[in-house]
Amino acid sequence: MARNNERRSALADAGIRVLAEEGARGLTHRAVDAAAGTPRGTASNYFPTRDDLISALVDRIGERLTPDPEVVAARDTRPPDRALFADYLRDVVRRLSADPHVSLALFELRLEAARRPAIAATLGAWRQRAFQEDVAFHGDSGLPGGQTEIALFHYAIDGLMLDHLTAPLDTGLSVDAAIAEFVDRILQ
Amino acid sequence: MARNNERRSALADAGIRVLAEEGARGLTHRAVDAAAGTPRGTASNYFPTRDDLISALVDRIGERLTPDPEVVAARDTRPPDRALFADYLRDVVRRLSADPHVSLALFELRLEAARRPAIAATLGAWRQRAFQEDVAFHGDSGLPGGQTEIALFHYAIDGLMLDHLTAPLDTGLSVDAAIAEFVDRILQ
Repeated sequence: MARNNERRSALADAGIRVLAEEGARGLTHRAVDAAAGTPRGTASNYFPTRDDLISALVDRIGERLTPDPEVVAARDTRPPDRALFADYLRDVVRRLSADPHVSLALFELRLEAARRPAIAATLGAWRQRAFQEDVAFHGDSGLPGGQTEIALFHYAIDGLMLDHLTAPLDTGLSVDAAIAEFVDRILQ
Repeated sequence: MARNNERRSALADAGIRVLAEEGARGLTHRAVDAAAGTPRGTASNYFPTRDDLISALVDRIGERLTPDPEVVAARDTRPPDRALFADYLRDVVRRLSADPHVSLALFELRLEAARRPAIAATLGAWRQRAFQEDVAFHGDSGLPGGQTEIALFHYAIDGLMLDHLTAPLDTGLSVDAAIAEFVDRILQ
């Protein structure tokens, strides 16, 4: 069973790589097997349909974006102020930047969602749950900002990451400086 | 010659449709001819390489996003205040939303730029020029906000449009309300 889970994760990681490197249309069971180095038929054995495969990718993206528990625990001792909020954002952006395949795969899936309702449903449910969890976490921890501010940060950080990972504008702002500006302005 | 230009635009419009509906990997000369209803070989006659085709798409996207001169002229008589700035933003978002193929094609090209340096160069130069023009226009017209604010709006509106055109989060904010919040907070 553990071995099966490892294989599932390895296949999903290969799918993320295919998405990032070839785009959504390149994502086939055969391409996943080729990227994972598994015998042809393995990916379709684990994920019979393309929608199953995409659900598995979404789950795996969620796992790869989960913050390190030690980092989270270290923050529990700090006062829930703007500085802590800014550190959370910087940590999200650091994780997204360090793992560009995951971020690019997620952007690919979002564009694919505009074309395929089944993907819109899977991805939409996952993003909506993550958003509600963010809002609840902020409420529970006493961090500044409510639902509106968190929505604005979602939009802002998405746009910033899309720029940063593709053909970045030269705006005179580093990524960290842009985050600091957004925190200063969105959290009033 | 006029007829040639018309044909070029029609082919580029077909390419934009292919990008939006099939993703970047679906963009081939053959797919463009099929979408435009032109005999096979027409698109490669006008745009010999895939990079030529993509340059033509970028130019055409720029044309389709250019604001109506009457709308711009009507604004010339208004004081350059926050309300006018907000109207400009709402107009950009209105144009992007009314023509989702253009916006989706542009997002596809941005992801393709992460994979192909030639596209990063074409698209990057075009976006950088548009950004500098925005900054200069703001300076000349006396609208509030400088380079930093315009950069923040670029990121924020990109993220908002990506959300709006794909599988939108339910954040409790309409697109117009999100724009109003960004204007209130970014322009201080």
